[in-house]
Amino acid sequence: MPTNPREARPLEGVTVVDVTQVIAGPFATMNLGDLGADVVKIEAVGRGDRSRSIDPIPEYFDTINRNKRSIEVDLKSEDGREIVTELAREADVFVESAKPGRMEAFGLSYERLSAENPTLIYCSISGFGRDSPYGELPAWDALVQAMSGIMSVTGQEGGPPLWSGLPSGDLITSMYTTQSVLAALYARQRGIIDGEWIEVPMLDAAISWLSARAGHTFGLGEPFPRLGTRHPTLSPFGVYSCADEDIVIAAGTDSLWRDLCAVLGLEELREDERFSTASTRAEHHDALKTEIEAVLADGSAEEWVDALQGANIPAGPIHDTRSVWEDEHVKGRGLRRTLERDGRADAEVIDHPIHFSTLATELSRPPETLGESTADVLEELGYDDGEIERLREADVIG
Amino acid sequence: MPTNPREARPLEGVTVVDVTQVIAGPFATMNLGDLGADVVKIEAVGRGDRSRSIDPIPEYFDTINRNKRSIEVDLKSEDGREIVTELAREADVFVESAKPGRMEAFGLSYERLSAENPTLIYCSISGFGRDSPYGELPAWDALVQAMSGIMSVTGQEGGPPLWSGLPSGDLITSMYTTQSVLAALYARQRGIIDGEWIEVPMLDAAISWLSARAGHTFGLGEPFPRLGTRHPTLSPFGVYSCADEDIVIAAGTDSLWRDLCAVLGLEELREDERFSTASTRAEHHDALKTEIEAVLADGSAEEWVDALQGANIPAGPIHDTRSVWEDEHVKGRGLRRTLERDGRADAEVIDHPIHFSTLATELSRPPETLGESTADVLEELGYDDGEIERLREADVIG
Repeated sequence: MPTNPREARPLEGVTVVDVTQVIAGPFATMNLGDLGADVVKIEAVGRGDRSRSIDPIPEYFDTINRNKRSIEVDLKSEDGREIVTELAREADVFVESAKPGRMEAFGLSYERLSAENPTLIYCSISGFGRDSPYGELPAWDALVQAMSGIMSVTGQEGGPPLWSGLPSGDLITSMYTTQSVLAALYARQRGIIDGEWIEVPMLDAAISWLSARAGHTFGLGEPFPRLGTRHPTLSPFGVYSCADEDIVIAAGTDSLWRDLCAVLGLEELREDERFSTASTRAEHHDALKTEIEAVLADGSAEEWVDALQGANIPAGPIHDTRSVWEDEHVKGRGLRRTLERDGRADAEVIDHPIHFSTLATELSRPPETLGESTADVLEELGYDDGEIERLREADVIG
Repeated sequence: MPTNPREARPLEGVTVVDVTQVIAGPFATMNLGDLGADVVKIEAVGRGDRSRSIDPIPEYFDTINRNKRSIEVDLKSEDGREIVTELAREADVFVESAKPGRMEAFGLSYERLSAENPTLIYCSISGFGRDSPYGELPAWDALVQAMSGIMSVTGQEGGPPLWSGLPSGDLITSMYTTQSVLAALYARQRGIIDGEWIEVPMLDAAISWLSARAGHTFGLGEPFPRLGTRHPTLSPFGVYSCADEDIVIAAGTDSLWRDLCAVLGLEELREDERFSTASTRAEHHDALKTEIEAVLADGSAEEWVDALQGANIPAGPIHDTRSVWEDEHVKGRGLRRTLERDGRADAEVIDHPIHFSTLATELSRPPETLGESTADVLEELGYDDGEIERLREADVIG
């Protein structure tokens, strides 16, 4: 059996300097923090991460910034750059999401910082990376969803393309950022590399997710269509109305189809030629939906979900962002967590979703106010009270 | 500067036994393969990964199964289990996505395999993990999108919830799988753990992505609404019609708003009280859209994208899964790759999106036919031709 007597976290002792804002970078460094890294979040003096104001509620920021220490530093000042350089000198990881060229202008390029710290893993998130025809075009999530093809597959049949209600372009980028940093840390630990520069282009990251949807185009030459809540090749599969509310049923195999017919008392449909195979069922999806909904109309969503799940048929409610927290599984897991904060409202966050048998993840530090750890971090770097006061008066720090 | 004279990949020499199918597991192990791992994909004899038949085109499978060796093994037979056990004995990583309890029934539980190989990192993907009220309910992507709240935020205002056109529930799970395996490999390399069992529940993974959307609910007590292609707090931001086609414009800051007015010749709108601040612009989103589209009607989407991008305003086309490959950036990066295969059609795949400065990623092995490497892998385990023939005749292998 594996052992981990100290309940150590996988990134314990790893230090991350985080010069990112909004979602793509912060969600990635939050995951590094959950895994045990000590993350120092650099924020603009007096203004901070744009997500502190992009939405008028602080909970937006809170959901993606736990497990970080916030310090306010003006990167445009020489003293401010020196602070960040000192942090990078001791750090394992540096993550930034400025426009290409901006960190060079600040004197905080990979070349500069790796000269100070040859084992630094430096990760640059940007819309398109270097050498793109789109140059320094700011890449907002909406644009990435549009240009990557993600929007084109989302929406009703015959309707316009919609974007995913989640900031998928940002979040896909986050996941590749964390993955790449972990791969580089592992390679460094194995002695394969000293340090590394990693470039994460949002558009390229989003396009990688087209995967099987691109396969449709590679095989058939046609764009993958918008299908609302229909499945391209499986039925019954989608949204079905009960007496009160809609539910999802995903009976994607022949055996699930048979089980579904049994629960609904629709065994006669199994003899119907239109529904005899997966492909004919998909072809006659609308007719099949009508037959199924005629039965579902006799009961509530809750009753039908219980009956279907009781027969191990994948079916469930369509939760919204409020009802999901009342779900029995979600409550049992404690996925909604409250992190206590002194002197201000507690933070509501979502727990790290992965369970390790012996490694620990931890939500040890609630999201901080702007610059909450400025003095602490500077003291760790060796600045004394007088210097900190001088820097604060000069607006180098907040 | 970092060095990596051999152009080594971060997971070079790492071996992965992959007992997953469809998308969530295979996309994760594909990423491990891109990063250099040797992935052996275990498939059911004569049938294989369900994604070989879930869609009638082989390109579906191909887009998520490069960099793996396919072997056909019957896990229900004792000889088959012995083959998988022998592979796990030498492996670093084992990934499975069977229903909870199924691997135990096969004699391939974490307990059994870690007894043979105490340094094994064993990752279990399932819909809900152990100890869930949903028990062994099969978790299809559609169900996870519904139950997690992802669907609820996707769709037109006033319209029904839709799912993301990408299998987001599966792909989020994939990214957490890769991330967790890498974190455990790193922890093992550092001596923090011997081996590890990792549990990745799809529903929990998907819920973690609600992030800022959940923040809206935590702050305001209301479900996050469906907004079609409108942004909750920013405008101009969304889909706008030109003379021929729609484009996306994401002018999410005051300075982008000023730049946009200049390019469109709409400077007078900056004096309009309805549009003076971000929040009033969002409030009068429809009126602002009408003003903007009146100007955009004078030119084509291509002309306006050129003009807007030329002024560094985030704007671009809405690509579909066919047009995206004609994009100048996408072509320049070579994101659509052709992997040559002997004796059958070449495979079309999407390149790994991340660039390392010295570490390499590689698409070295095209997607294989079912059981293409069965004999090779068994020979590496020490089976001779006679044994392989006997196992094949007994349908233990394909």
